[in-house]
Amino acid sequence: MFQKVLIANRGEIALRILRACRELGVRTVAVYSEADRDSLPVRLADESYCVGPAPSSRSYLNIPNIISAALLSGADAIHPGYGYLAERADFAEICESHGLVFIGPPASAIESMGDKLRARQRVREAGVPVLPGSDGPVSDEQDAVRVAEAVGYPVMVKAAAGGGGRGMRVARTPEELRRVLQAARAEAESAFGDGTLYLEQLLPDARHIEVQVLADQYGHMVHLGERECSIQRRHQKIVEEAPSPMVDEALRRRMGEAALRVARAVTYVNAGTVEFLVDPEGHFYFLEMNTRVQVEHGVTEMVTGVDLVKAQIRIAAGEELTLAQEDIRLDGHAIECRVNCEDPETFTPSPGTITGLWLPGGPGVRVDTAIYAGYTVPPYYDSLLAKLMAWGQQREEAVARMASALAELRIEGVRTNVEFLRRVVSSPEFGEGRLSTDFVERVMHVHVPGGR
Amino acid sequence: MFQKVLIANRGEIALRILRACRELGVRTVAVYSEADRDSLPVRLADESYCVGPAPSSRSYLNIPNIISAALLSGADAIHPGYGYLAERADFAEICESHGLVFIGPPASAIESMGDKLRARQRVREAGVPVLPGSDGPVSDEQDAVRVAEAVGYPVMVKAAAGGGGRGMRVARTPEELRRVLQAARAEAESAFGDGTLYLEQLLPDARHIEVQVLADQYGHMVHLGERECSIQRRHQKIVEEAPSPMVDEALRRRMGEAALRVARAVTYVNAGTVEFLVDPEGHFYFLEMNTRVQVEHGVTEMVTGVDLVKAQIRIAAGEELTLAQEDIRLDGHAIECRVNCEDPETFTPSPGTITGLWLPGGPGVRVDTAIYAGYTVPPYYDSLLAKLMAWGQQREEAVARMASALAELRIEGVRTNVEFLRRVVSSPEFGEGRLSTDFVERVMHVHVPGGR
Repeated sequence: MFQKVLIANRGEIALRILRACRELGVRTVAVYSEADRDSLPVRLADESYCVGPAPSSRSYLNIPNIISAALLSGADAIHPGYGYLAERADFAEICESHGLVFIGPPASAIESMGDKLRARQRVREAGVPVLPGSDGPVSDEQDAVRVAEAVGYPVMVKAAAGGGGRGMRVARTPEELRRVLQAARAEAESAFGDGTLYLEQLLPDARHIEVQVLADQYGHMVHLGERECSIQRRHQKIVEEAPSPMVDEALRRRMGEAALRVARAVTYVNAGTVEFLVDPEGHFYFLEMNTRVQVEHGVTEMVTGVDLVKAQIRIAAGEELTLAQEDIRLDGHAIECRVNCEDPETFTPSPGTITGLWLPGGPGVRVDTAIYAGYTVPPYYDSLLAKLMAWGQQREEAVARMASALAELRIEGVRTNVEFLRRVVSSPEFGEGRLSTDFVERVMHVHVPGGR
Repeated sequence: MFQKVLIANRGEIALRILRACRELGVRTVAVYSEADRDSLPVRLADESYCVGPAPSSRSYLNIPNIISAALLSGADAIHPGYGYLAERADFAEICESHGLVFIGPPASAIESMGDKLRARQRVREAGVPVLPGSDGPVSDEQDAVRVAEAVGYPVMVKAAAGGGGRGMRVARTPEELRRVLQAARAEAESAFGDGTLYLEQLLPDARHIEVQVLADQYGHMVHLGERECSIQRRHQKIVEEAPSPMVDEALRRRMGEAALRVARAVTYVNAGTVEFLVDPEGHFYFLEMNTRVQVEHGVTEMVTGVDLVKAQIRIAAGEELTLAQEDIRLDGHAIECRVNCEDPETFTPSPGTITGLWLPGGPGVRVDTAIYAGYTVPPYYDSLLAKLMAWGQQREEAVARMASALAELRIEGVRTNVEFLRRVVSSPEFGEGRLSTDFVERVMHVHVPGGR
């Protein structure tokens, strides 16, 4: 096992990794921006290093400073969390070249899955269905319209270097397609430095369902069932759950096997997630593979009992995965709500100081957060304040528990989406599990600019 | 199901019951003493009534005021929690006579188990072993010495009306027995208004292991495995866990069956706990039955997935228990630490205002508490601040997780036993599960006046 791990992230996921390290008896090194000096992970880590000013480009994405902190502290591995450097193949390589273990998949696997268009190709070759779409990048408007005509409208414009919903646009007509193409290209260029776009058919009434995979360095792989993440806004997940209310044992087995085929196709190692769109008849189509721990990993932990972050660290340290597929049983049902610091009307981030705080607890309730009473939410980072999770023996109990926990939750001093989450969880559609990726528009009647 | 439940308690257990009611869609009525006006259960309940000044005798034990609050609010049931009115057969009867459902066993079962000496007799008749001891009350010093000689020293002097460790004394010689008899009788008289004493053999190297039972109104009963609560100070439990590291499947089945025999002997209904002492060879002896929810019920919830407080409410509302014995599987391992507000040297309560608070969270961690940053701990009540629980796939993981959670926990402004708990959990004896009721003296080298 490692002696010391550097945590190259901030907020709740930094604390999550810190807890996993502690349980393994591994010392922790926090890195932080000037804005995060007083943050909880910094206070709780064994040592900590400032790696630059607030903007992420100068701190949490500042590879030279992070590598220096790792070498200076004598860390033997780096956990990148999610976001930031987590899916940067170059960072994984730089770590290795400095004798630091990157806690994640090999650079080659990150690279294969980072190019969404190449990944699509690879996955299709592995015999896993993808949505009808362009075989390669769309070169120009004319090319795009021709492809769209072939696959049928509506279509989704996507960035080849994409992820996290950026560079994604829906087009229902050739006119709309011409219009959104430019915006999507500009967004992709600004977000990823690469404006390559491709098209996919837009699947109506689709659900977003993803499969969690764990693979060790010796070729042993298992899947840990699925998570449904259909409740999204601007392609950002808001409410997630495990298992999916629409997946039965047979579909779970088929999707699990497909996810493992995808992982094997890129010789995957460590934790990863294979995302699918699923239609009401249970046909599923590969979307992308996320080569890191997901924000929503906790719901899988609650139904399987497997600590995914500890598993990541153990795998990276060279341990064999001792779990057999048949050891993995899904017990009960878990739901996660992402509590964001945002204006409840416009959904724009709304930082400030938390003057009062009550986080719910009790049976089946889990909170992952790094906020506390008196904490000032800096304006530089994403709006996630806390992940509130509830487990129940059946979905019904989990829903009731989540509703009760949301009723209890108090965050004073900043504006949050808690009321919005309460309305989602108390809606009859959610109670009955009638989910789809247009849930927020269809059920909550929220129309988000840039949404579908 | 009930429409409205009155919660006749305070602190974390009041909040625990409130959460259970909310999940069941039942409205809640809090009652509070003047000292608890700003408490969290009062703030979170649907309505609340002040039932008297701070001393418990004038508020939480004030039956007329509590019954009035129930009638005034239109509650149809009362949950007594633990302590206070929970094991008062007269209170259960008064509730019924006012048309209020008492959420607990019938008055007759409370009464049968409340007289520890009669309970001992009854249990023996049911074929469950009890420790050698006096067949009835010891009338005087001479009688006590005679009984002690017959069962062999050391002996334990116990109050017939006892419970919670009060009126209990160890005697190793006839001289010591004569000495402690008076003190025990005085303590029993002051605590219970009944100085009746009896003797039991003191079992060396014993473990305190108790079995959780659930029984509905239709004669269906199950047990939910055991909890080990050997780590005690002054007969007060400090650290509890489920399952016991020393109980195997065969012993679990035998103890479970014995617990159900005890429950059947008094036609038990609702949740109850049958406590045993267990020697290193696995011989077990009935100690007493607690006819209420226990402080440490959460560890059983964590390994079985069963919400015991919701089960209590459902049973009291006349629902059938749908759990079969074979449905109850123990999954993983859970540990609870009682975080007390007390002087770490003298163990005396140490109230004050909590100026800073960080409660741990993350996977497998549960906190049941009603404290918050800014809360003032009143000097009138017991010293329990929070119950910190940790679950793991194996005991080893639960221990590591508890150690990590205790390392994270910060309670500023009041003195606590957190450092003591850290030492317990990090001790090799605890890590290896080598527990016994003299753990605190044997391993922690703490000698408590009035302890053994």
